[in-house]
Amino acid sequence: MDLDFAKLGGLLPAIVQDAQSGEVLMLGFMNEEAYAATRSTGDVTFFSRSRNQLWRKGEQSGHLLRVREMRVDCDVDALLIRVDALGPGVCHEGYRSCFFRRIYENGMAEVVEERVFDPQAVYGARENQKKDPRS
Amino acid sequence: MDLDFAKLGGLLPAIVQDAQSGEVLMLGFMNEEAYAATRSTGDVTFFSRSRNQLWRKGEQSGHLLRVREMRVDCDVDALLIRVDALGPGVCHEGYRSCFFRRIYENGMAEVVEERVFDPQAVYGARENQKKDPRS
Repeated sequence: MDLDFAKLGGLLPAIVQDAQSGEVLMLGFMNEEAYAATRSTGDVTFFSRSRNQLWRKGEQSGHLLRVREMRVDCDVDALLIRVDALGPGVCHEGYRSCFFRRIYENGMAEVVEERVFDPQAVYGARENQKKDPRS
Repeated sequence: MDLDFAKLGGLLPAIVQDAQSGEVLMLGFMNEEAYAATRSTGDVTFFSRSRNQLWRKGEQSGHLLRVREMRVDCDVDALLIRVDALGPGVCHEGYRSCFFRRIYENGMAEVVEERVFDPQAVYGARENQKKDPRS
């Protein structure tokens, strides 16, 4: 199965979904190397656009995402990865899902989820967190 | 709530999830105009990269996606849209979800969902379908 990495200059969007609850946890991007690493290790590995390097999700926090099932879409240009999330949450802001804010009709956004961990305790000082937000 | 359209040259990935079942149905891209149209009409509207124009999902098939809830992620560079899908499926190949193929460890892909409609009956002749695959 050849995936189409060309449409976004070598990157493919990958949706991460909790295999048990069905909750959508985050969206990241993979290049061919990250996709190969994900398949060979069983741990979701992205390509970090900000750091320009492979990024095994949870490598710092221990909140790894273990692959349960991978799906590819009709145009072979997007992935859906069902995972077991080894940690309370995937978001560097301390939420279960990165999609913790709802946008209302008037354009205002509101946090609609509960924090499940303290990001400073997991990721260290706020300054580091800003520089390296999603490791 | 200002979204970050800059990272992908004016486009934002938008995940579409069935509001009832939690099934991930597809991933599309929105530019600012498509995002505004989605909010003002309540129908999921993408920017078609292949046709270089706005694309109200279901405009041809009648399988519109009615917005139930919009979420934005921590980096304001991805959307999660929970919808009521007005039709048997969203995929131009006749499946409920575009993610109808599973990728196995050896890299082989297999169809793991059932077809729910006849794409030729909905989208017309196969030749048109190829030229304009997801309208």
